[in-house]
Amino acid sequence: MSDRPIITLTTDFGEGSRYVAAMKGVILSTDRQATVVDVSHSIPPQDIAHAARTLAEMVRWFPAETIHVVVVDPGVGSDREIFYAEFPDCRVVCPNNGLLTNLADRENPRKMVAIENPAYWLPRVAPTFHGRDIMAPVAAHLSQGLLPDLLGTPRTELVRLTPHAASACVTTGKEQGVGQKIEGEVVEVDSFGNLITNITRDMLADCPGDTSVTVRCDEHETVGIFTTYADQPPMTLVALIGSSDLLELAIVDDSAKIMLGVGAGAPVAVAW
Amino acid sequence: MSDRPIITLTTDFGEGSRYVAAMKGVILSTDRQATVVDVSHSIPPQDIAHAARTLAEMVRWFPAETIHVVVVDPGVGSDREIFYAEFPDCRVVCPNNGLLTNLADRENPRKMVAIENPAYWLPRVAPTFHGRDIMAPVAAHLSQGLLPDLLGTPRTELVRLTPHAASACVTTGKEQGVGQKIEGEVVEVDSFGNLITNITRDMLADCPGDTSVTVRCDEHETVGIFTTYADQPPMTLVALIGSSDLLELAIVDDSAKIMLGVGAGAPVAVAW
Amino acid sequence: MSDRPIITLTTDFGEGSRYVAAMKGVILSTDRQATVVDVSHSIPPQDIAHAARTLAEMVRWFPAETIHVVVVDPGVGSDREIFYAEFPDCRVVCPNNGLLTNLADRENPRKMVAIENPAYWLPRVAPTFHGRDIMAPVAAHLSQGLLPDLLGTPRTELVRLTPHAASACVTTGKEQGVGQKIEGEVVEVDSFGNLITNITRDMLADCPGDTSVTVRCDEHETVGIFTTYADQPPMTLVALIGSSDLLELAIVDDSAKIMLGVGAGAPVAVAW
Repeated sequence: MSDRPIITLTTDFGEGSRYVAAMKGVILSTDRQATVVDVSHSIPPQDIAHAARTLAEMVRWFPAETIHVVVVDPGVGSDREIFYAEFPDCRVVCPNNGLLTNLADRENPRKMVAIENPAYWLPRVAPTFHGRDIMAPVAAHLSQGLLPDLLGTPRTELVRLTPHAASACVTTGKEQGVGQKIEGEVVEVDSFGNLITNITRDMLADCPGDTSVTVRCDEHETVGIFTTYADQPPMTLVALIGSSDLLELAIVDDSAKIMLGVGAGAPVAVAW
Repeated sequence: MSDRPIITLTTDFGEGSRYVAAMKGVILSTDRQATVVDVSHSIPPQDIAHAARTLAEMVRWFPAETIHVVVVDPGVGSDREIFYAEFPDCRVVCPNNGLLTNLADRENPRKMVAIENPAYWLPRVAPTFHGRDIMAPVAAHLSQGLLPDLLGTPRTELVRLTPHAASACVTTGKEQGVGQKIEGEVVEVDSFGNLITNITRDMLADCPGDTSVTVRCDEHETVGIFTTYADQPPMTLVALIGSSDLLELAIVDDSAKIMLGVGAGAPVAVAW
Repeated sequence: MSDRPIITLTTDFGEGSRYVAAMKGVILSTDRQATVVDVSHSIPPQDIAHAARTLAEMVRWFPAETIHVVVVDPGVGSDREIFYAEFPDCRVVCPNNGLLTNLADRENPRKMVAIENPAYWLPRVAPTFHGRDIMAPVAAHLSQGLLPDLLGTPRTELVRLTPHAASACVTTGKEQGVGQKIEGEVVEVDSFGNLITNITRDMLADCPGDTSVTVRCDEHETVGIFTTYADQPPMTLVALIGSSDLLELAIVDDSAKIMLGVGAGAPVAVAW
């Protein structure tokens, strides 16, 4: 019966990359009893913002003691630090390069430590692969119960990405009854071609959801915010709040990405 | 020593999808001792027939008590039901949308239950992701030994896809000595470009296999049914019964898909 | 607490292939306690040299008792043998078709056995999938402690690929002070578009690394060999010794593959 916290891996190495396998080998060499779960290795290369969103979305589905290792590290070998960060619902080992932005936007870390003590690293560290030589063995030691304070020096300052959440709710002439408008963008396209936006369920708390609401994506428009794809007939453009609590646009039984010809970065506006 | 039945995952989410990781997180949050094995996340989006074939092919390689979770679910959020189905050689949790067709063609399920009891689901169920919020935790509970009868109401009716097996063996003028003909199609292309058909070893039981047999695929023709690729020289079109007991067409040491320019749906005929 | 050696899988089946899942099912059917780790299923189809390099690179990151199963097997069904080979730092089960070349270049195997005893195979062996029907169950038995000598007959001869290491260090007129030149080629492109060559750290032991060194790749040239990407500004072509101890060429913060328009096979020369 394993009582180890799970270790997850999120990287931009690509599915089937042997760099991922090397990390797993190092973890299992350090701790044969480790349980390693792949979150994704399909983060677009060096896309810290994408990984930061993925991390914040994923942690809620894992036990709180899970150790999430995130290696999207364009600054590897520079003086950027590697952090251990502890949140109420997860623990993370990653470069301090903005990857923790979305998690920290939600809740402050209760502990941060700069990973500096080579006692828990591989004996030889390649300057271009700290994921394998530093983060993997550190995660394995943490999973075995190592006290995080032994990893290095406490830290309080976090590198944060500039805000990439939806622009705040813009009230235009509410007093005159003109209504509200929220502007955001498509941040991700899933395997079905659904367009995931950065407009959250919370931002839409006051939105009636009925046909008085207009949702625009690029040049395309639809009315109403529905509950599920099956609420509308095939080939219809539908807006709904998806399983990650984000507004998404979908073509029922088809790909919105292909049918609308839009992708990440496309502007999205909700008005009512 | 784990004595849990294995849980497998088959979806159309794409390799590296964080939706898959969320399902694993939910399973491991419910049961830290679960063993999860990926079958494939490369089912073409919403292709129930493809997933049904994959499922029927895969289960034989796993222990009979294994719980196979299949999430190809275009009707998520509609009134389609989610089933627990028990066969002599496997157990399955999936939407009742045709995914069990090929398994049930082979052998009747000995038990079917509609999954209705929210006690074994996540507390909050997103209308667009029952794989994560219902099927994953149910599989984890089953793996821990939950009695399937507690999941909901017994069912006897299964949604089935219209037949997509090879058309039955067409005997044309056997009395006049004209011989037999079997017509089917390419249903899958593997990573080597081999063309996998829906003509089974059983259908070919009376086929002599020698050069009196003609195999046609689209406009291309070859004679004889061989045992393995190495039976013929490089760059030759060869027909053989593959490792899934299905007739396949291959170009020795090359890609039949590219060389013949055909893919899924191409007509295949065997005549002797 | 599992005390089994890990089993790794390396194939050319493609990520998400159900052939991989079948192998995992067979391993876990033979030994429920097995731990299976994917190295890569993205080996280019039938590319034995690529797999041989990957294997030699990967084993060092895993515990020495690990059993690496490698299925890149264009000769499946021919009279090529399947080997169990034991090296000081790993154990391998694979076809004897050259896959062990790079491992054996480094160090002689201390034991080789032809896998001939069907007692440890699946009862029925498909002539086109020995990975599933022979190698997978053999690996599971070995992981459980089976003595390798029971698998078949001892062997001493290994099939080797023709040398594909960098051409040896060519000294041109060193006496006249003209310097040294090493010629190799790009053997792999990683997910970042970095060009990995077959020129090793050892070959460069005498190379000063400073601006007196010229590195040429196809028509492109750069000077100096750096330690990490961060040593040079964005969009610069940089040569460095990567995390696998191989010379690589990278464009800082971009893809050398795309920016230079070169891939595997491109000639690389280092001169000083």
